[in-house]
Amino acid sequence: MPVLVMKFGGTSVATLDRIKRAAKRVSREVANGNDVIVVVSAMSGETNKLVGYVNETSPMYDAREYDAIVSSGENVTAGLMALTLQEMDIPARSWQGWQVPLKTTSAHGAARIEDIPTDNITEKFGEGMKVAVVAGFQGISAEGRITTLGRGGSDTTAVAFAAAFDAIRCDIYTDVDGVYTTDPRITKKARKMEKVSFEEMLEMASLGAKVLQTRSVELAMRYKVKLRVLSSFEEYDPNAGTLICAEEDIVENNVVSGVTASRDEAKMTLVSVADRPGIAAAIFGPLAEAGVNVDMIIQNISEEGRTDMTFSCPVDQVSRAQNAVSAAKERGEVNFEELVCDTEVAKISLVGIGMRSQSGVAAKMFKTLSDEGVNIKVIATSEIKVSVLVDRKYTELAVQALHDAFELEKA
Amino acid sequence: MPVLVMKFGGTSVATLDRIKRAAKRVSREVANGNDVIVVVSAMSGETNKLVGYVNETSPMYDAREYDAIVSSGENVTAGLMALTLQEMDIPARSWQGWQVPLKTTSAHGAARIEDIPTDNITEKFGEGMKVAVVAGFQGISAEGRITTLGRGGSDTTAVAFAAAFDAIRCDIYTDVDGVYTTDPRITKKARKMEKVSFEEMLEMASLGAKVLQTRSVELAMRYKVKLRVLSSFEEYDPNAGTLICAEEDIVENNVVSGVTASRDEAKMTLVSVADRPGIAAAIFGPLAEAGVNVDMIIQNISEEGRTDMTFSCPVDQVSRAQNAVSAAKERGEVNFEELVCDTEVAKISLVGIGMRSQSGVAAKMFKTLSDEGVNIKVIATSEIKVSVLVDRKYTELAVQALHDAFELEKA
Repeated sequence: MPVLVMKFGGTSVATLDRIKRAAKRVSREVANGNDVIVVVSAMSGETNKLVGYVNETSPMYDAREYDAIVSSGENVTAGLMALTLQEMDIPARSWQGWQVPLKTTSAHGAARIEDIPTDNITEKFGEGMKVAVVAGFQGISAEGRITTLGRGGSDTTAVAFAAAFDAIRCDIYTDVDGVYTTDPRITKKARKMEKVSFEEMLEMASLGAKVLQTRSVELAMRYKVKLRVLSSFEEYDPNAGTLICAEEDIVENNVVSGVTASRDEAKMTLVSVADRPGIAAAIFGPLAEAGVNVDMIIQNISEEGRTDMTFSCPVDQVSRAQNAVSAAKERGEVNFEELVCDTEVAKISLVGIGMRSQSGVAAKMFKTLSDEGVNIKVIATSEIKVSVLVDRKYTELAVQALHDAFELEKA
Repeated sequence: MPVLVMKFGGTSVATLDRIKRAAKRVSREVANGNDVIVVVSAMSGETNKLVGYVNETSPMYDAREYDAIVSSGENVTAGLMALTLQEMDIPARSWQGWQVPLKTTSAHGAARIEDIPTDNITEKFGEGMKVAVVAGFQGISAEGRITTLGRGGSDTTAVAFAAAFDAIRCDIYTDVDGVYTTDPRITKKARKMEKVSFEEMLEMASLGAKVLQTRSVELAMRYKVKLRVLSSFEEYDPNAGTLICAEEDIVENNVVSGVTASRDEAKMTLVSVADRPGIAAAIFGPLAEAGVNVDMIIQNISEEGRTDMTFSCPVDQVSRAQNAVSAAKERGEVNFEELVCDTEVAKISLVGIGMRSQSGVAAKMFKTLSDEGVNIKVIATSEIKVSVLVDRKYTELAVQALHDAFELEKA
């Protein structure tokens, strides 16, 4: 029997009625001839309640106890989903992480999956079970303690099961109906994509499109799991949602697939840095140690032995970055005149596999923004992405103009 | 190190503040030089919420899924208690049933404990852990599924751990401060007992004193576990509560230890039954099959081949009993003129180990009730108990009169 993995997030199982609705989708896939592995999150709100208990009890908590506590929400949903399926006469049972067992590292709160033996569940499929309902987000360490994979870890659970069971597809049901060319709240011209490549999805996920956890996309890419994102609130449609797949499964690529915007950015410039070999390491070493996620880095051409060094980071890490750089200056490791912060910027990015073989994308992007009077502060490029920092107030204008210029509303 | 078991019920861990209060009691016992096993229930209300989910989802639920779902409440409390103790610098960790492992039968929803291997927890005590926090009410079957012991099963968990670890005592913290000579709401003269024997406690538990689950008392009696019931809401006092222990540990027994009252009783009489050998089996067989818990049974002297047969059962089982008896009549298995139901009765019982060696208790009971004008409808006796059925409106009067007559307010 082909195995299909279906994952339902917290809003898709928030109430008993929604669990029933999700179970109906599962029943259709069973009727289609699949053995199904359903991965469920906790009912929405439950995990936050439990995390709240933990933080109030012990701000510097023992992560092993944290994991034992917060994993209980998924156990409840898994049991309720199994019961709901049984009520529909579908042979189903629940599996907690330790029952599979889903083996992980001992990095509590952020464990990595090491192995998913398939024999237990495969045996039950052989005995007539049609659906294995798996509690997402959790596993078991070599020490026999419960681990969790970090927030959003249920996506990763689902993809890992799809890889382990060589599933025909992994369907991620969520509260959006797919991946869009840009945020539909910014422009109504935003178009849902039928297909998008793993590489593009990874760039979009890390750039602010909060549809899928980045880790799950990486895992899907590595194991070539066909991943589909679709809404659990829409009518059933076998071709719904967006398929995230290998590049070779997409016949014709747009040069540019999407425009993303991330508003929580800050730009920091060290003015007139005394330039010398190793100066970049002297600056970014302390920043990394302080846990600052430096994104873009620009160094101006050095004049008379001095240069300006600009970088961007999340806006809520600005004071941490300031402290780290100032401390490095006090220790005599770097020498600069001034530290200038701009906390009112946004990052606008174009993403597209087709850029690899097409030139002129960056130039067209810059001209489009210039025509709209949007000043570009920083530029960074990768093989399939061009990103710029602009004043945050231009976010919507920039996205709309780029979406139009690259005609992303057309398939 | 001596091992002490402490059990906290749902109201004692209902909030984070109450968990903290319970943890302080644990810390005192650790300071007294004990290794402590703490057994916790779910925060009060949690289990009912989960049971509600199950019943709404699947009225005829799969008990294996029921157990997987409802056991999650205890897991949360166990983790929170461990964190709270850690915050007080006490080395503690949580244990879920399958981690111990607490091995049970596969009778889901009402599993019986088969074995509690002590090596895992003993090893951790050896490594410096001072408190093992165990999720009550749950275990694991030979098939690797989660089981539960039935409502109130956390008391049983606690006693079973005390037996397995040869604990010096098992303290059950609850919302009452001990076992009373009678219900304090009926008479203010009710006195908290310092000690009570297992046998008396068993009679009182099954007769309506809802302090401890009957099963846990049976288990404590079998393994000679010293059991103490005390309130988690009172100030700390090393001699608080009531000790439930073997008869030989009680120096001087009162003839009568307590008076109990159970209001939810009904009396049913089959008038003019055609008497013949096997008639009792013909009546009570169908009642047992229908799940009626028959308590007292009285057969009048047979006259001219006909007799009256009276029995009592819980008032909410009356219609079930009527149906069973009528069906037996229709099938021709019994022959009676009339079935008379009295649903307005209460059972009043005197319990006391001392009755074994003292005669006259029953006679004094009957005279006391007679003096108060309370008519006795049915009488039943055992070695350490005398029970009567009376009109329910006399419940308080009967209890007060008997409490006075046997001077139970005096130690």
